[in-house]
Amino acid sequence: MTTCDLLIEGAWVLTCNPAMEVIPGGWVAVQAGRVLALGRPGKERPREAAERIDAAGAILLPGLVNAHTHLPMTLFRGLADDLPLERWLNDFIFPAERLILDPETVHAAALLALAELALSGTTTCCDGYFYADAVAEAVLASGLRAVVGQGVIDFPAPGVPDPSQNLAAAEAFCDRWEGRSPRVRPSVFCHAPYTCSEKTLAGAKRLCAARGLLFQTHAAETHREREECLARHGLTPIGLLERAGVLDERSLLHHAVWADGSDLEILARRGSAVSHNPESNLKLAAGIAPLPEMLSRRIPVGLGTDGSASNNDLDLFGAMDLAAKVHKAARLDPTAVSAAEILRLATRQGARAIGMGAEIGAIEPGKQADLVLLETRAPHLTPLHDPVSAVVYAARGADVRTVIVGGRRVVENGRVLSFDPAPAAARVEEAAARLRRLLAPPAPGPA
Amino acid sequence: MTTCDLLIEGAWVLTCNPAMEVIPGGWVAVQAGRVLALGRPGKERPREAAERIDAAGAILLPGLVNAHTHLPMTLFRGLADDLPLERWLNDFIFPAERLILDPETVHAAALLALAELALSGTTTCCDGYFYADAVAEAVLASGLRAVVGQGVIDFPAPGVPDPSQNLAAAEAFCDRWEGRSPRVRPSVFCHAPYTCSEKTLAGAKRLCAARGLLFQTHAAETHREREECLARHGLTPIGLLERAGVLDERSLLHHAVWADGSDLEILARRGSAVSHNPESNLKLAAGIAPLPEMLSRRIPVGLGTDGSASNNDLDLFGAMDLAAKVHKAARLDPTAVSAAEILRLATRQGARAIGMGAEIGAIEPGKQADLVLLETRAPHLTPLHDPVSAVVYAARGADVRTVIVGGRRVVENGRVLSFDPAPAAARVEEAAARLRRLLAPPAPGPA
Repeated sequence: MTTCDLLIEGAWVLTCNPAMEVIPGGWVAVQAGRVLALGRPGKERPREAAERIDAAGAILLPGLVNAHTHLPMTLFRGLADDLPLERWLNDFIFPAERLILDPETVHAAALLALAELALSGTTTCCDGYFYADAVAEAVLASGLRAVVGQGVIDFPAPGVPDPSQNLAAAEAFCDRWEGRSPRVRPSVFCHAPYTCSEKTLAGAKRLCAARGLLFQTHAAETHREREECLARHGLTPIGLLERAGVLDERSLLHHAVWADGSDLEILARRGSAVSHNPESNLKLAAGIAPLPEMLSRRIPVGLGTDGSASNNDLDLFGAMDLAAKVHKAARLDPTAVSAAEILRLATRQGARAIGMGAEIGAIEPGKQADLVLLETRAPHLTPLHDPVSAVVYAARGADVRTVIVGGRRVVENGRVLSFDPAPAAARVEEAAARLRRLLAPPAPGPA
Repeated sequence: MTTCDLLIEGAWVLTCNPAMEVIPGGWVAVQAGRVLALGRPGKERPREAAERIDAAGAILLPGLVNAHTHLPMTLFRGLADDLPLERWLNDFIFPAERLILDPETVHAAALLALAELALSGTTTCCDGYFYADAVAEAVLASGLRAVVGQGVIDFPAPGVPDPSQNLAAAEAFCDRWEGRSPRVRPSVFCHAPYTCSEKTLAGAKRLCAARGLLFQTHAAETHREREECLARHGLTPIGLLERAGVLDERSLLHHAVWADGSDLEILARRGSAVSHNPESNLKLAAGIAPLPEMLSRRIPVGLGTDGSASNNDLDLFGAMDLAAKVHKAARLDPTAVSAAEILRLATRQGARAIGMGAEIGAIEPGKQADLVLLETRAPHLTPLHDPVSAVVYAARGADVRTVIVGGRRVVENGRVLSFDPAPAAARVEEAAARLRRLLAPPAPGPA
């Protein structure tokens, strides 16, 4: 260990290893895209490095893992807020999806979303949407990593007008993307147990299981979903998913806000994972998920933002802040969940939840060199009594100075280096303006 | 109206006038530190301006009003999180205040906090702490505005070792600062009905009333406070404040998380105001305040961050985001409170709550030219379907490009122009390091 490609020195290193060790003034050596070694100031380090970063006073953490996104929904950010869920979906989101989506627009919106992720320190996301090929191409072009799920729903959908072809479309997508790039992992994303039949769910899971891919679905997001599922099937949404045979350690359920004790027992027994999306759950009035109970049952939980239409941003720092706070108030217990626990969800636990725990989510020898350097010389991060507290409770995406994915610089000083987001932004603005015209009520006559 | 000092053109102008009018591509003219006029693109504007700002595509809003701060507690940001309230106060905050506070340190910490406020678009705050002279001097030096409350408590306190002198100290502070600067308004801040006797509360209110100053106190922050007050006095904390005769339209109660229907009736009848501090209430596990009920009773409510020790930042954009979301989930109702309503709290309603409604809180002719220009050309603010939604749900303090107070440029492109925060930051870091050593358990022997 005498040389390396990159040596980062002098940072607070938040390793996010199993002990969540923090190394003050530590160094990290990168070689061939992976973490070669790391250590305390005194520990012997590579003598030569092709490149060095002086990170004195900064915080180095693993690239954040966003466990639940719908990247192209960036198109609908702020289009309609503060509405009842049914009006939001039926009067805005569903018509908007019918009116405006095509592969090129989805590609542009996904690329813009990936720029937002990169600039705010997220290096991997777990996505699900329609036109998943366009999303996967955007990920490939962006330099980031993602699990990309092809959406499956038992209704006519963007890109899949005939629902009888939804599994075939998902299979074809997986065929095209399996093994194509180490940065893109295909997946199948069933919309929900109330929009997919048990047969569809089981078929999607079989498709995933045969290839070792992640199966995703929304589940138990709202109280109404739970009540209707109980009335229709005599089972909770998670009970129904178990009966459909789709729950194992390669299944990821998004939200699980209304999971009760037996539901959590099922998830713990099956080894299935959950994404926790507190900003979306609050904004859409879904409720507050039982995160402390999930953690005490050792269910793998990742942290997510959900899509920009229901958040309205993809900054995982905001999600960390909220996740660390909201459960304290909901239980009147300031020890309900700690800042370090939330940082773990946003890194190593999130990586595990999306099936990438062996590769990413921590700064450990052999793992991918997905690294984020946070600037701390700012009033809102001064003084720095505790770097974990600073990351969770005070830092924001805008504090990110450098982002590295697989050893490659993706962001530096607020600028994306791995691609140019401007053409994507222009195309999204144009599509958004067109969408507003299409959705607008007919103009009244002259006043 | 042919000339003016400054003309800002082309912005989305969020006036925060009574109708919360938004002017696309509007202009605002500033003369002698105040708003001279504003209008739509076609409306006649001053022909000459000493200075022009091209704000095409940006969002212009009134300087935000933070209705509850303890500026010097920036010293304790991240010192101790996720602890039961009693341990947090008794093992960390109270000892820290005894060990480290002096007027110079309070001045530096307040100045650093004011830099954080300015950089994140807040131009006025309503503060309360000990050594209020040092805080007021910092406000004067910063270029921002503040209501500065001298803390009053019936225990030995920093700067007021003899509690029998607490009202005399507050009176002397008010004497020194009344009329000294249009940017600093003195106030008296009684800590709480459980740490101040009714006699102290009444004396503090008399002192304020005689001078037309704002009276402040924490009230009904925790369930325990409410239960103990009921057990001791047979009255709720707000009932006790009414009996003490301290509630009128120049009284501001911080938190009121545990205000019940009768408490809210009292506040509505008396015309007293409330600061809503959802980030602090969540982090300290106080609970979720009944904001929708306060608003439906037309109680003037401002939005606050509370001190950095319990938040852990002073960015009011984060507080807006949370305030717009948390009540939706708590009531499972996405219409519980709208983005526009929350923007109103952070601007004109906050100004009214702290007794400055005639001067600030909106972009209206005659009001102070306290203005914030937000950059919107960033992935996380694209597309811009709705500027109010963008401000509340997606923008962050870091998006602030320009801050103007009374017509004077205070922040430009992430840099404070009105003072240099670096010496204050250095002094705070030094004090923080000293504090960590003083609070640290004795070092163990050699391992």
